[in-house]
Amino acid sequence: MDNKKPTVAITVGDPAGIGPEIIIKALMNKQIYNICRPLVVGDSKILARSIKILNTNHNLKSIFDVEQAEFKWGIIDIIDLKSVDINTLEYGKGSVTSGRIAFETIKKAIKLALDKKVDANINCPISKKYIDIAGFNFLGHTEVYAKFTNTKDYAMMLIKDNLRVAHVSTHVSLREACNAINKDRVLKVIELSNELCKKINIGIPKIGVAALNPHSGEGSLLGWEEEREIIPAIEEARTRNINVEGPIPADIIFAKAKTGFYDVVVAMFHDQGHIPLKLLGFEWDNMSKKFKSVSGVNITLGLPIIRASVDHGTAFDIAGRGIASEESLICAIEYGAKLAKSTSVGNKNG
Amino acid sequence: MDNKKPTVAITVGDPAGIGPEIIIKALMNKQIYNICRPLVVGDSKILARSIKILNTNHNLKSIFDVEQAEFKWGIIDIIDLKSVDINTLEYGKGSVTSGRIAFETIKKAIKLALDKKVDANINCPISKKYIDIAGFNFLGHTEVYAKFTNTKDYAMMLIKDNLRVAHVSTHVSLREACNAINKDRVLKVIELSNELCKKINIGIPKIGVAALNPHSGEGSLLGWEEEREIIPAIEEARTRNINVEGPIPADIIFAKAKTGFYDVVVAMFHDQGHIPLKLLGFEWDNMSKKFKSVSGVNITLGLPIIRASVDHGTAFDIAGRGIASEESLICAIEYGAKLAKSTSVGNKNG
Repeated sequence: MDNKKPTVAITVGDPAGIGPEIIIKALMNKQIYNICRPLVVGDSKILARSIKILNTNHNLKSIFDVEQAEFKWGIIDIIDLKSVDINTLEYGKGSVTSGRIAFETIKKAIKLALDKKVDANINCPISKKYIDIAGFNFLGHTEVYAKFTNTKDYAMMLIKDNLRVAHVSTHVSLREACNAINKDRVLKVIELSNELCKKINIGIPKIGVAALNPHSGEGSLLGWEEEREIIPAIEEARTRNINVEGPIPADIIFAKAKTGFYDVVVAMFHDQGHIPLKLLGFEWDNMSKKFKSVSGVNITLGLPIIRASVDHGTAFDIAGRGIASEESLICAIEYGAKLAKSTSVGNKNG
Repeated sequence: MDNKKPTVAITVGDPAGIGPEIIIKALMNKQIYNICRPLVVGDSKILARSIKILNTNHNLKSIFDVEQAEFKWGIIDIIDLKSVDINTLEYGKGSVTSGRIAFETIKKAIKLALDKKVDANINCPISKKYIDIAGFNFLGHTEVYAKFTNTKDYAMMLIKDNLRVAHVSTHVSLREACNAINKDRVLKVIELSNELCKKINIGIPKIGVAALNPHSGEGSLLGWEEEREIIPAIEEARTRNINVEGPIPADIIFAKAKTGFYDVVVAMFHDQGHIPLKLLGFEWDNMSKKFKSVSGVNITLGLPIIRASVDHGTAFDIAGRGIASEESLICAIEYGAKLAKSTSVGNKNG
């Protein structure tokens, strides 16, 4: 039935970071169980330690298969990989072990999704450094998901309220990001953005494409990528019946988009999209010198499965103190559940 | 005496744009006359047309020398270049004439400042295109001021409330901006930022330096400029007793800086600094499809004279309708007056 709550698998992320504690905090929120059927992929000993720190009386239920899950508020279902000696894991200290667990839990969650045992994956933050030290050569979640779902064309999207930003490139140097601007890739990201909008029931999506160079290249005076690559991509997208505008100077497009003027902004590189998102989504506290609130969701467009994650890092500096904000994780769970539901309806209609 | 109000010369900008009307609107605000002694540099026929559109009973007084100015609210003093046939100037249509006037008025205002007849220059927006068509090869105000004040080391700073951003490069392509990152230039912009803070009486300024590459280069995995150029510049600045931190990922530094955590952020390129400033300072109206509010100030660090301008463009599309917001111009006048006053006090104490 269409109104069945989607099952979401939440990965624990790097267990030396804040992942375990924000999972417990998020699952203490009854509302989460109203919108989805959540389970954790990790290790019960890791979550048990966070439960102790947070001083809550929620229970853990170790399971080995999704069918064993109860999905009842108060009992946290966990697919238990049982692969760690908890004494080797120290808060705030990434290690070969923490990197390995981060990676293994993602792989397990992907398998559950590909096997259609869960409807969405939700990820807590990992550390590229410790994934690497553990022997896995990936730049981030996005690349792991692309690899294990065998996906060629994908794009990272960040979401904060009305602002959705899809990225033409992500984890490459700024010089490489300039080299990565080409008509085919820009066109692909426009198309992926348009498809996402349709999945979330935006009738006629309006896509805005940012420029690469200042003042949108000022008619080729300040760079040639707009004329040679970005404009041809936009023109081609229009012939494919996509409602798309641009290239628009990057210092203008986000001020327009934050009001909902564009359903998606296509950003040309990582920081171009990340600066406005985090400026709107993160709240810094000058007293404690910490971010007191981090909201925003990271999803990957183009995958055969649904995947959403927090848009912040492992925060090793505050891990294990129970003070990390679960806000972004809640947003990610909500978004993943929403996408899973609309996709499931779409599939049945289509 | 120290509490003497500074004299500020406001240039009309491109007269086919919104400059003339926002000047009249700003000078209808009595508060401006409480903080400074304002005069306009332009052409009386241009301002007269804006007065008519705005339907105000303010008077114009054409003058040829600053000493003739009355600086009285209700009478707008204008250094009258008398160099235009008003019938050749159409709202919204930049031309050789509009570009020429824009340029001549800046040159005149610079001369007034160098001759110490005025304490600050405030600029309305110009169009690079029509400055160029009129035969003057400059990328913007900043470059004109550098040339005519014979200044080698300067930097553009944008200001919105607590957020001050100095730029290592401005009007160059993103590829050239990458090439422009070098230790000496980054160090110079840190120093200019520190000097500005002292001028506006910030006791121990705290400067944050943004990274060029995503994740601050992730230990040279995503670009080498942090390790080879930016970090050495920061270390050198510390030996010169500057309180400076970085490089900090660009998607994090502005979220921190907007709360006042840094007194200045040093941005590595134009859009890196302009995206957060305009996201915070500009308000888009989805109904009218126009920016209903634009606030923020642009100043040039390192000049021998004080210069502030609006941080928006000529807005040819709405020029002549009297609907443009004077908010950014008022901010620029206030900032120019404040800088003039503190510099004058500083000079007397120093």
